[in-house]
Amino acid sequence: MADPEVEEKLAPLRASVKEQGDLVRKLKSEGAPELDVKRAVAELKARKKVLEDRELELSKSVATFDRAKMEDLLKRRFFFDQSFAIYGGITGQFDFGPMGCALKANMLHAWRNFFVLEEQMLEVDCSILTPEPVLKASGHVDRFADLMVKDTLTGECFRLDHLIKAALEKVAADKKTPETTKERCRDIVIKLDGMTKDEMAAVLAEFDIKSPLSGNPLTEPIEFNLMFATQIGPSGLVKGFLRPETAQGIFVNFKRLLEFNQGRLPFSAAQIGNSFRNEISPRSGLIRVREFTMAEIEHFCDPADKNHPKFSSVADTQMTLYSACRQMDGRPAEVTTIGKAVADGTVNNETLGYFMARIHAYLLLVGVDPRRLRFRQHMSNEMAHYATDCWDAECLTSYGWVECVGCADRSAFDLSQHTKATGVKLVAEKKLPQPKNVTITEAQPNKGVVGKAFKKDAKTITEGLAALRSEQIEDLENSIKENGHYDLKVGDSEFRLTGEMVNVRTYEKTLHVEEITPNVVEPSFGIGRVMYSLLEHNFRVREADEQRTYLTIPAVVAPLKCCIFPLSGNAEFQPFVKELSECLSRLDIAHKIDDSSGSIGRRYARTDEIAIPYGVTVDFDTVSQKSVTLRERDSMAQVRIPVSQIITY
Amino acid sequence: MADPEVEEKLAPLRASVKEQGDLVRKLKSEGAPELDVKRAVAELKARKKVLEDRELELSKSVATFDRAKMEDLLKRRFFFDQSFAIYGGITGQFDFGPMGCALKANMLHAWRNFFVLEEQMLEVDCSILTPEPVLKASGHVDRFADLMVKDTLTGECFRLDHLIKAALEKVAADKKTPETTKERCRDIVIKLDGMTKDEMAAVLAEFDIKSPLSGNPLTEPIEFNLMFATQIGPSGLVKGFLRPETAQGIFVNFKRLLEFNQGRLPFSAAQIGNSFRNEISPRSGLIRVREFTMAEIEHFCDPADKNHPKFSSVADTQMTLYSACRQMDGRPAEVTTIGKAVADGTVNNETLGYFMARIHAYLLLVGVDPRRLRFRQHMSNEMAHYATDCWDAECLTSYGWVECVGCADRSAFDLSQHTKATGVKLVAEKKLPQPKNVTITEAQPNKGVVGKAFKKDAKTITEGLAALRSEQIEDLENSIKENGHYDLKVGDSEFRLTGEMVNVRTYEKTLHVEEITPNVVEPSFGIGRVMYSLLEHNFRVREADEQRTYLTIPAVVAPLKCCIFPLSGNAEFQPFVKELSECLSRLDIAHKIDDSSGSIGRRYARTDEIAIPYGVTVDFDTVSQKSVTLRERDSMAQVRIPVSQIITY
Repeated sequence: MADPEVEEKLAPLRASVKEQGDLVRKLKSEGAPELDVKRAVAELKARKKVLEDRELELSKSVATFDRAKMEDLLKRRFFFDQSFAIYGGITGQFDFGPMGCALKANMLHAWRNFFVLEEQMLEVDCSILTPEPVLKASGHVDRFADLMVKDTLTGECFRLDHLIKAALEKVAADKKTPETTKERCRDIVIKLDGMTKDEMAAVLAEFDIKSPLSGNPLTEPIEFNLMFATQIGPSGLVKGFLRPETAQGIFVNFKRLLEFNQGRLPFSAAQIGNSFRNEISPRSGLIRVREFTMAEIEHFCDPADKNHPKFSSVADTQMTLYSACRQMDGRPAEVTTIGKAVADGTVNNETLGYFMARIHAYLLLVGVDPRRLRFRQHMSNEMAHYATDCWDAECLTSYGWVECVGCADRSAFDLSQHTKATGVKLVAEKKLPQPKNVTITEAQPNKGVVGKAFKKDAKTITEGLAALRSEQIEDLENSIKENGHYDLKVGDSEFRLTGEMVNVRTYEKTLHVEEITPNVVEPSFGIGRVMYSLLEHNFRVREADEQRTYLTIPAVVAPLKCCIFPLSGNAEFQPFVKELSECLSRLDIAHKIDDSSGSIGRRYARTDEIAIPYGVTVDFDTVSQKSVTLRERDSMAQVRIPVSQIITY
Repeated sequence: MADPEVEEKLAPLRASVKEQGDLVRKLKSEGAPELDVKRAVAELKARKKVLEDRELELSKSVATFDRAKMEDLLKRRFFFDQSFAIYGGITGQFDFGPMGCALKANMLHAWRNFFVLEEQMLEVDCSILTPEPVLKASGHVDRFADLMVKDTLTGECFRLDHLIKAALEKVAADKKTPETTKERCRDIVIKLDGMTKDEMAAVLAEFDIKSPLSGNPLTEPIEFNLMFATQIGPSGLVKGFLRPETAQGIFVNFKRLLEFNQGRLPFSAAQIGNSFRNEISPRSGLIRVREFTMAEIEHFCDPADKNHPKFSSVADTQMTLYSACRQMDGRPAEVTTIGKAVADGTVNNETLGYFMARIHAYLLLVGVDPRRLRFRQHMSNEMAHYATDCWDAECLTSYGWVECVGCADRSAFDLSQHTKATGVKLVAEKKLPQPKNVTITEAQPNKGVVGKAFKKDAKTITEGLAALRSEQIEDLENSIKENGHYDLKVGDSEFRLTGEMVNVRTYEKTLHVEEITPNVVEPSFGIGRVMYSLLEHNFRVREADEQRTYLTIPAVVAPLKCCIFPLSGNAEFQPFVKELSECLSRLDIAHKIDDSSGSIGRRYARTDEIAIPYGVTVDFDTVSQKSVTLRERDSMAQVRIPVSQIITY
């Protein structure tokens, strides 16, 4: 990142971002009108995008990466491929073959050990089908939408930002287009990301954009909710959705989990499972798909204490941080320690920092290249209004920087929303540092009199009185004193209560605990995106031979750990092959036997393609001297060792 | 099962089944009219049900099992519970808490090792959202339905068989009902399982059955498809379903998997994943739910050779088999070896037998009680028309015998259906024992002449000619000889070809391989049902104390393997607790620390409830002598051992 030649080319772009970043800061500090700030932020984003695009162009790893070659390997050796291909296929859906499936299973197994076991998290496995009220409370029913337009004749749908981008790029590429129009097109494309529905509608009209497939006119922009809808049960009356994230399942189980943890904070809950988003026009392979596996953690903690007992164990972790401040200054990301970043306030608190460091360690464990990994902080305008701080772990791929793991401090938002929707208090009890005396005023019914007067409504009245707030109790006292009665409203009913019916009682009470709504720190992994990134980061071509490609995936997640090669079909080799294979099976070590007829070199190349780290060759020396050749994938180094020692390796 | 007292009570019922079974056999052998056979089979089923119900009544394990007590434990310690309970909940959906989730994850991990790794299966992970044509081909769109009726006023739905059963049981229980009517009600309830839509409609009318909730009239029976429907993509034009089983994902990937296996048969593919069924009125806890995890294997083999190379390794497995023949004879299931059962033809072939034995071993491994496990063969009238043989592994629970794993030889049905629907040949090549000479007749276009005459249609014509069957080629030859031309139809077009345009060529060709459609043996696990069964089989009450319940789940699948107990809050214990915990974490051994304030006995009881097999207590001797107490869950035995030896245990 610090190549001076590259930095020279980027310098003017960095300066341009800084200039605009400073303007935004100034406007905000002066309390300028919101519209002015918004406009300045849009310009800032546009300049940032120009900088980032140029950085990517100049990046060696992106420029030289041969995606087609890797995709060919992944398809040919069935890591993954399009679903239902014999039926024409569906975009945005993929099936994982034996290699992809094993890689994924190993990634998840490592995740479970790394997070759930090591941190003693409470893992849950919740329903995918979710009734509407849950997702109404979480905000997904109202806000989880993308803009699209439809062909008015064929009904074909297009994602609006993609459509405008393609159309304007075409206009800009046309030789006959005047230079000013070209400039305007490029400007719009850059700003597209931050545009509102109305602004995009104006662009559609200005350039008279039609369907790129049929040339037909298009509808106005429509907000399309990205959740898959269905009906639960046969009546057609219970509307449900496939969950768009796994997190809500944890929130609705909060009470049970807190109880499982014997009422104590902090604790973490975790969930691995599939989520679904009905993308309008999915593309970019595994990066944007309609169903995907997530691994999410919700760490519940005291809002007043976000320190983490194990933070010191990770404080020295070196990480690449791209803070909001640096983004506004046009400066590059910096390599620092998480300890320093928390100490100087760049990262909001220890708990957030602890999880960022753990995410970092996990990504490296499974094979992400640390030089192509950064943590980017959301700028205040990107962040949900309730979030305190949010960092995305982004991997550099041939598609650019891809968000693979989000790590957000979501404050008390989710629990509060579900409490509001259900009336069920999702809170924890916190011991007060010292007992607190409070004065409690209660309006108590005189049950005998009330029961006689109101019969079956007595219970409603008792509940109504218990629900009165202190100022209402004051009203009651005054009203009885002045008028001799008080009209109690419960729901749609009203009951006239006399002085004989109610006693107002005031007393002191000592409280030892207070109720708090925990805050949530949420690391959220997109497993498919992490997988795609590590595949790109580990894809290699042998220096000697362009046709020989291989994958340097770490042994801990490699689909198979070992391949046994009998040198030829000679029957003498078979007992050794069988014995080795049985021994590996007993140790639960995934392996294969390659007894196909190709030359040993050709067979080695085949196993390199599917990332098998070790090869064991059984040959005539095995028969005579009980030794085998052990070969390592990345270095291609070979050593001869006795059969009996293979397992210890 | 061989209790003489019980058998004495069952003897007349067994005889009654046998009598009817013999009648069915006789009718079939005489080629009696289908209706007569059907009627006799319905009566046979009814008598079998009477026998089985009586057997269950007399079964000690079922009679004494306290389901409410177990459910209380599972809920209280959050193994699983109803989903979205704070929103009122949805029937047929469950969330797994930390204990249930760990149990499930361990069961799946064991499954993967036991089947995928040990048998070198090709595991895949396919899409849940499935486009309609795939499930049309598999038969699910047309046939995967249950009968229901709706309340004509409120729209409330009822599963028809459940509704009739409840209504008639009520009639039969009424003292005022005449004895003949009671008899008729009981008779219908027993036969309900085999009734057609029309027969059930007749029962509704005969007893004038109304909605049990509102007393309103009901609709005619409706076939309700059990798949959840949704739309894929924003256009609303691509109809999809949540898959009702994982198997179809494997079938549509058959070509890729065969290629991955280098074209060789036999091989097995496997998949673990969620499936969905929109049950009309789910009940029976985890047994009948709307979303559930399956683990399925599709073993593809040569239809002419269903021997299995590893069959000899399982041939001596003792299993309880309840063959179709025994069911017809009213005889009990027999304990035998799978080797004998295959040899005498009870089980159709070695491959099926091999998988049955492996299923048996897996179920025992995870904790199913062998005395409450049987393999029941489908009778010919239960089996899908394409299946050759089918056995269900059934577990005895307080709900009766529950089908947990199916194991069916599905012949070539599924691959043939998808070939028919897509035109893509799903076949394997089989080497012929000796090369075969065949005579091939082809109609070849004279490309120059055809190209000149038909321009862009030339390609269509070439393809049309290549697709002609031998008798059509004969027609072509004759027509050109007689009329000088032949009218070739391709799709909706017709082309007049003359003698100059086509040559018919006949030649000999030597074939070394033939194309075959593989047969499929399918073991299919309902993971939730296996889990529920093993929970029942491992639920115990301490003899000394009715309130102390525990679970004897085997260590291999127990949610946590070990619990560390500091005897008290004494600070001296903490370093030992920490060291032990870190050591267990390093070895990926799931464990917890119970440092709560209860007495040690109370804390032991708490860990027994969540099936932790081992407890390690740190006390003053630990500090002075570096030894700890190791306690075993089932026997409650305690031994004192040095800290250093804990890990080897």
